[in-house]
This record gives sequence, C-alpha cells and structure tokens, in this order.
Amino acid sequence: MEEMKKGLEGVVALDTRISFIDGAKGILKYRGINIEELTDLPYDTVSYLLINGKLPNELELIEYSQRIREDRCVNAKLLEMLKNIYFGEEALDGLRTAVSLISHFDYENDDHSSNANKNKAIRLVAKFPTIVAALNSCYEGHEYIEPHSDLSHGGNFLYMLKGCIPTELEAEALEKDLILSAEHELNPSTFSLRIAASTRSDPYSAIICGLCTLKGNLHGGARKGVMEMLDEIRKPENIKGYVADKFEKREKIMGFGHRVYKTWDPRARLYKQVAKKLALEKGDRYLFDMAEELEKVLYYEFVEKRGKAIYPNVDFYSAVVYKYLDIPSELATSIFAMGRVSGWIAHCMEQYSENKVIRPRAHFV
Amino acid sequence: MEEMKKGLEGVVALDTRISFIDGAKGILKYRGINIEELTDLPYDTVSYLLINGKLPNELELIEYSQRIREDRCVNAKLLEMLKNIYFGEEALDGLRTAVSLISHFDYENDDHSSNANKNKAIRLVAKFPTIVAALNSCYEGHEYIEPHSDLSHGGNFLYMLKGCIPTELEAEALEKDLILSAEHELNPSTFSLRIAASTRSDPYSAIICGLCTLKGNLHGGARKGVMEMLDEIRKPENIKGYVADKFEKREKIMGFGHRVYKTWDPRARLYKQVAKKLALEKGDRYLFDMAEELEKVLYYEFVEKRGKAIYPNVDFYSAVVYKYLDIPSELATSIFAMGRVSGWIAHCMEQYSENKVIRPRAHFV
Repeated sequence: MEEMKKGLEGVVALDTRISFIDGAKGILKYRGINIEELTDLPYDTVSYLLINGKLPNELELIEYSQRIREDRCVNAKLLEMLKNIYFGEEALDGLRTAVSLISHFDYENDDHSSNANKNKAIRLVAKFPTIVAALNSCYEGHEYIEPHSDLSHGGNFLYMLKGCIPTELEAEALEKDLILSAEHELNPSTFSLRIAASTRSDPYSAIICGLCTLKGNLHGGARKGVMEMLDEIRKPENIKGYVADKFEKREKIMGFGHRVYKTWDPRARLYKQVAKKLALEKGDRYLFDMAEELEKVLYYEFVEKRGKAIYPNVDFYSAVVYKYLDIPSELATSIFAMGRVSGWIAHCMEQYSENKVIRPRAHFV
Repeated sequence: MEEMKKGLEGVVALDTRISFIDGAKGILKYRGINIEELTDLPYDTVSYLLINGKLPNELELIEYSQRIREDRCVNAKLLEMLKNIYFGEEALDGLRTAVSLISHFDYENDDHSSNANKNKAIRLVAKFPTIVAALNSCYEGHEYIEPHSDLSHGGNFLYMLKGCIPTELEAEALEKDLILSAEHELNPSTFSLRIAASTRSDPYSAIICGLCTLKGNLHGGARKGVMEMLDEIRKPENIKGYVADKFEKREKIMGFGHRVYKTWDPRARLYKQVAKKLALEKGDRYLFDMAEELEKVLYYEFVEKRGKAIYPNVDFYSAVVYKYLDIPSELATSIFAMGRVSGWIAHCMEQYSENKVIRPRAHFV
C-alpha cells in the first residue's frame, strides 16, 4: 500500500469527459467549452450539454425544454406528504426526503436500463425547483404555486417562490446561477455520488448521496454561510473588525479560498458581474459595495499576513446574488443543488458506463 | 497531479482507529480485536465498542442496551407515513426515506454539537430494525408489531418480523449477522459517508449516504443477489451448468471473490458455521449442502481455469443464513445496514474529529 494523501488532495481518482479545471490559470470548461461561453445560454441547453455530451441543436433543445416543462409538476400525494416535512435551518433536508419519496412514486424505479435511468434523472432536473418552492411554501405557510410553463427553468423557480413573474434580469440571474452551479469535476458531492453509482446503486440513491454531501458548510452549505456572514457584518465599517477577529481565532472566512483554484475562480468573476447588474437594476449598491470591500480587505490582509493573495470562491458573490433576489438563506444549498443536479446526472451515467467499484484502503493507526 | 488509480485500488485515503484488515492473511479486527472474538458477544457490546473505541464494562453495557431498547419505538406519525412508502425490489429504498423522515421529527436535528450528533446516531442504531420490520409489515399487509424490550437487538428484529419469539439459535444467528456486518474499513458505503461527513454534513445525511451506496449489487446488494442466485440454481445438480454458463458469458458469480481478501474472508468462515448450525437445528441440510457444493465447484473451476482459487465472500453464507431465517430477499440489504450502522457512526465521528475535506481530482480525457 502507498503513502496516505490526506483528503486525497492531488490524487487523480478517475478519468472524465465532463469537465476540466485548470486551477492555476482559473479555467473551467464543461464538455470542452469555457464556462464564460455558457452563461448566456438557457440552463436547459447547459443541462442537455452536460447530460448528453454535446450542445443540442434547435430541435433537440425545444424537445428537451418541452420535456422538462412537462415534468415540472409533482403529484398531489407527494405534495400532501411534503406538508409533513418540517425542515429547520436547511431546506436541503426536505429536498433529500422529497427525492427519496419521489422514487416510491416512480413506476420505473426498479427498471435499471440506461433508458429508464436517464428518464428518472431528467424528471429530477425538472422537479427539483418545484420541490424546493413547495417546501418553502409549507415552511412559510403560503399557498403552493403551480409551475408556469412559459418561463425558463430559473424564471419559473422565482415565480413559484414569490408568486409573481420575475423581472427579465432576475430570471436571467437565476439561470446563470444554475449554470454556474451545474458542474465542477470531482467535488465532494459528485465524488460520493460516483461511489454510490460505482456499486451499481440506482440514480435516485446516487443523487441523494450527492445532496447529503452538498449540505456540509465546507461544500454547498458555504453559500448559506456567506449569506449569514453578510447579515452578521451588516455594515461596511464592521468589516475590518470582523476580519481581525477571524484572524485572531484562526477561523475560516466563508466564501474565500478554494482547494483547486489558486487564482480567481472563473465562476466567482461571473457571479460578481451578475451581482453588480442586480445592484444597479435595484438601485441599491449597498450590499454589493460591502461585499467588494470585504473582498479587498481580505486580499490585502492575506498578502500582508500570509504572503499570498486569497480570492472569492463560487460561494461568495453567489450569496450576494441570492440576497438581491431575496432568497431565504435556508434555501441557498437547495438552489445550488437545482443547478448541480445536471452535472451529477452526467457523472452518474459516466460512472455506470465505465465502471470499477471505488474502494480505497485506510491505514490502521 | 499523479497517475490515475482506477477505483482507487490500493490507494490509502485516510488513517483510522476503527478497523484493520489483512487481506492476504484473512484477518479482520474491530478496534484491535479479532472478529472471531467478537461474535459471541451481544450486538450491543460490539456497537458500543465501535462507537466508543473500547469494550463497555458491565454497567456501561447495561446502560447502552437500556438506551437502545428505549429508543426502539418510532413515533405514530412516522409509522403512518411509512404506510405510503411502497418499495419494490429493495426495502432499502424505504429505509433511506424513513431515515430522512426521522430527521424532521428530531428536535436535535439542527444541533451540531458532538453530543447531539452521538444522540442522533444511537437513536438510529435503535430504530433501524423497527423501521425495517415496519416497512415489511406494510409491504406484506400485516399488522405492525411493537418492539419487544426483553429481546436482544437481533432477537427483537426477528420477533417484529415474524410476530413470534425466535428460537435461541435464530436470535443468536441474527446477532452474529449484525456483528459480522457492522464494520469493514473503507468499503464504498463507509467511504461515501466519510466524504459527506468531511464537508461537515450532519449524521443523518452521512448515514443516508452510506445507505445509498450500500444498495448497489456490487456492495451490500450482493447478499440479495446471492439469495436470488440460490433460488435460481434450485437443485445441486444444476450447479455445474450454472457455473459453466456464467464462465461462458464472462459474468460474475455473486458471493465470491473480494478486492481486499485474497484468501478466506474471516467473516465468510463464521457465517458458514452459523449457516450449518441453523441447517442442523432445522433438520434441513439441503440448502447448506447445495451452497457448499457450489463453493467447491467454483474453487476447483477457478484453480483449473484461472490458476488461482476463489473463496466465498461475506455475502455468500450470510445469504444462506437469511434463507434459513426465512427472511425475504427484499430485506437483505436493509438487514446488512442494521448491522453496518454502528461502523458508519464510528467513521462519521472519526471524520468529524480529524477532518479534512475529501476531494480528489479527475483527469479530463
């Protein structure tokens, strides 16, 4: 046996055709296409790209979007059951339960053909936003709002969440958010999902594995953490004290630094643009300016105290975007999952098709 | 970045104090104690050992057992919800949903202190058998049977499953089964659970991750596969044809061979003893003899055709034991999980206490 690599840092666990990261140069590609070229497309296009390995032509996109829109509804019995799901600080707990429940209503649950597996997966892409909105309506005691088939994936989610049609920019912001959240190589949730798939577990179980792992605040849960941090800081004049206090306690500051990126995460840059646009449209730069100020303070603190820069990661400006969209922090991780599910599905299918059980060893001490 | 090790075979992913395997010599130890020395103890003792790192003294065992017995009940609302959980070929799907539901009823769900985490975990050890029996009673349309607080962990499960007190040997067989299933280093389900825990996800989510991964038929689901294989073979005279057919199609034979063990898996040997005892008590050696015949045929076929021996793994004689205990094959993976949950909890706690996010890389092709 070999030397132990804590956290498997730098260890190459598998080959993939799905995404590529160059952490030194700040490059992220989905299926060979730079992330910057993808964010102006509809989420449906990027979801299709990830799952099918190529961009859809016009007809394929129409068909795929149509299918997702038709599958947005969840059945009445499931909705009734969701009313009994009280989540506390994390709607993701409810999403995890709901996905598990959906499998029991799925007539194809025990059909393990690749066609049936793909059907299940695409139904989940379609239903995730409906479930998250429904969980939120139970939580807040509002009436459940049916999906709106004329709206985009992101726009429809905001509509179900708020009960009114979002502005064009708001819908666009959420579409971009879902695209930027859709895929990121062997992040922990994707890796645990691939382990489940490697034992030939079913797509529902694999995706639930992904959800369970995304929840942690060192992963998808960090976005919620950033929202809470921004609430805690409250005013730009509190930033320096907040940062000094964190340094003193040797605690991490949420939303900064990434194991893979040693420069700007390209997603963070794109999120920053979206956040700025929203700030301008809403005529309220206060939050954006505060976030940017925190970014600068941290950059110089790190350069001075540690001799190296630190950059915002994907969770930092995405949290700012969510705050401009008036999204409750309890939903942040679930919305991340709404985007990520397409990448998870791609990895699940790739694992099925080139399978070897993922089973490392431990060293007994 | 380094060379890729497919399936992370032979890669050491972390240090552990929980179990030790020597695959060449066929040795398995839980917390430094040989598995052979543990199978005559009650499951509660081994569960305590795994979770707390040491054997309980008399008083500690009484307290732990008492606590588990008190926590066996599940609340009425949950039981009502379980009636809506229709599982098909895998009760584990229902167990996965039920564990997720339980978190919503747990007043400590959002308390992330290590004390609260341990409470949640121990409640799951206690409730797993009740949930599996309840799911089975819904499935078979029987009345739900309340847990019996005078019976051992394994004995009580058989009681809830059948509605009558099991014989001493039957209860003992299930106790041993749960012990032999309790822990096995970085198997895929434990590994995916540790990834979830490494992101600081909660114990419910981590254990659900374990369940989702255990389900696959290249992992915990193999036990069910062996039961189905024995049904398919049906008669000893069909063995040679069955084996020849599998060789010809280059298909795996369920219940044989293991990535880590290159000799007898010590658990398989112990399961074989249990199976034989049950065969003798029940005065029905037919199934046991057929299983042993399959073992022999395969051994010689492998030596002859591949130049190396093959041995039964943990799933082979455990499936025979389940058949003697008249356990429906749909429950096999869930019963595996009833045992494994103690090991999962130990790994979850160990990951929390010495954490680094588990995040390898992929190689883009």
